[in-house]
Amino acid sequence: MRYRRAESCKDRYIASQLSVVLVSTRNPLNIGAAARAMANFGLEELRVVNPYEVAFREAVSAVGGAPVLKSARVFETVAEAVADCSLVVGTTAAQKRELQQPIQLAEAGIQRIREHAGRAALLFGSEKFGLSNEDMSYCHSLLRIPTAPGTPSMNLGQAVAVCLYELNRGPLNKGEPRKPRRSRTDPVEGADAEQLTKMLLDVLEKSGYTNRITAVSTEQKIRRWVRRMRLTRRDVPLLLGILRQVLWKFEEPSK
Amino acid sequence: MRYRRAESCKDRYIASQLSVVLVSTRNPLNIGAAARAMANFGLEELRVVNPYEVAFREAVSAVGGAPVLKSARVFETVAEAVADCSLVVGTTAAQKRELQQPIQLAEAGIQRIREHAGRAALLFGSEKFGLSNEDMSYCHSLLRIPTAPGTPSMNLGQAVAVCLYELNRGPLNKGEPRKPRRSRTDPVEGADAEQLTKMLLDVLEKSGYTNRITAVSTEQKIRRWVRRMRLTRRDVPLLLGILRQVLWKFEEPSK
Repeated sequence: MRYRRAESCKDRYIASQLSVVLVSTRNPLNIGAAARAMANFGLEELRVVNPYEVAFREAVSAVGGAPVLKSARVFETVAEAVADCSLVVGTTAAQKRELQQPIQLAEAGIQRIREHAGRAALLFGSEKFGLSNEDMSYCHSLLRIPTAPGTPSMNLGQAVAVCLYELNRGPLNKGEPRKPRRSRTDPVEGADAEQLTKMLLDVLEKSGYTNRITAVSTEQKIRRWVRRMRLTRRDVPLLLGILRQVLWKFEEPSK
Repeated sequence: MRYRRAESCKDRYIASQLSVVLVSTRNPLNIGAAARAMANFGLEELRVVNPYEVAFREAVSAVGGAPVLKSARVFETVAEAVADCSLVVGTTAAQKRELQQPIQLAEAGIQRIREHAGRAALLFGSEKFGLSNEDMSYCHSLLRIPTAPGTPSMNLGQAVAVCLYELNRGPLNKGEPRKPRRSRTDPVEGADAEQLTKMLLDVLEKSGYTNRITAVSTEQKIRRWVRRMRLTRRDVPLLLGILRQVLWKFEEPSK
């Protein structure tokens, strides 16, 4: 039987709208391996947050993914890396922590990305610790690759390959083509969600709601809550207006 | 949502009946990475054919797969490595060669392994050249991971991880449990298939069928043909008996 060429990624729109985000990766060879898997499955947009080794772009492990690696964008924080994304999915082995977000198996988690209209990010944590609670608070949902209970920790490049294989494997989207054109009913993007989060935290602090001791966990709780609300772009000016008004009221001298 | 533990491999019977076979692997780190992926997905039986680096067992890349790596068995030939297997599936990027066997996408190829009652082997070739035509002639079928046309060559450890993820991903076998007990109607194992192949080649050569120039391609053709016939164990003594008789006849002095 002869070989027939497959589509590079079954849905070019998804491939162009999905960024792989590697957070605090220690070994540059793993960044290269992730770039290689991206090239294998037709993805181009690699983002790297706070890598341990700054000179990662020459990693020989990239092979066919060298162009992906060379054009990778570097960010200092997760917030900046996902600022233009309206869906952020984190990956986790889900072993120790009590997770605060919905967790799905890779198949369902990747399906959510496939169905999303707008920019999406798929986050991978460091080799040793995975994503931190802080990193995860930027995620709308989490996914887990089904592994053996005793040996759940996968190599980073292998985990990236498995997730992108899953993206490529699934059925073609049979519905009407999604419109990349922005609409007021689109989900809010990361930058707007973060502005809302920060202003809400400001309100909570100034109102005396936030206990100094629990401030960090409150911040993560609020960040998760803002992402869970499924806000649309048209909600943003309204909510920001309300919060600004509250803050203004706080600063008014009491009579 | 809390994390619930998954089965290590959805079907323990499949996990115990499937060997991963790495042929002519050059980089011991890739053997370690394959062992790690096997441990991640609950497989134990690693076989290594003619590795470039004999001292591969200490590869640090194995991490949680160190026990798999330590217990790996080494063989000199593919024939020996699959001697006890009644299904052999090869992996290929299917780029250059005209393939002589049916080739399926990973999903269908792995499904065939899942449905097989008996020992199976999944073969991966060397990093640079993949499986040779000679290696492939031992395979009942080939599978291909769907990749981008321009960058089809995957890292070995990543390819192993994707295939084993696919094995773990699929639906549970809903039918009655397969019986590991051997039956006369089971497909022939590698060693028997090879004995038949060799004796048939002997007949072809002694009969004058085999042209010396095309001997190698004839050998591969016959080997593939024997595997395509779906012979069962009870066919073996019958066929061997016939071939022995033919050979004996050849040696009889002509009258």
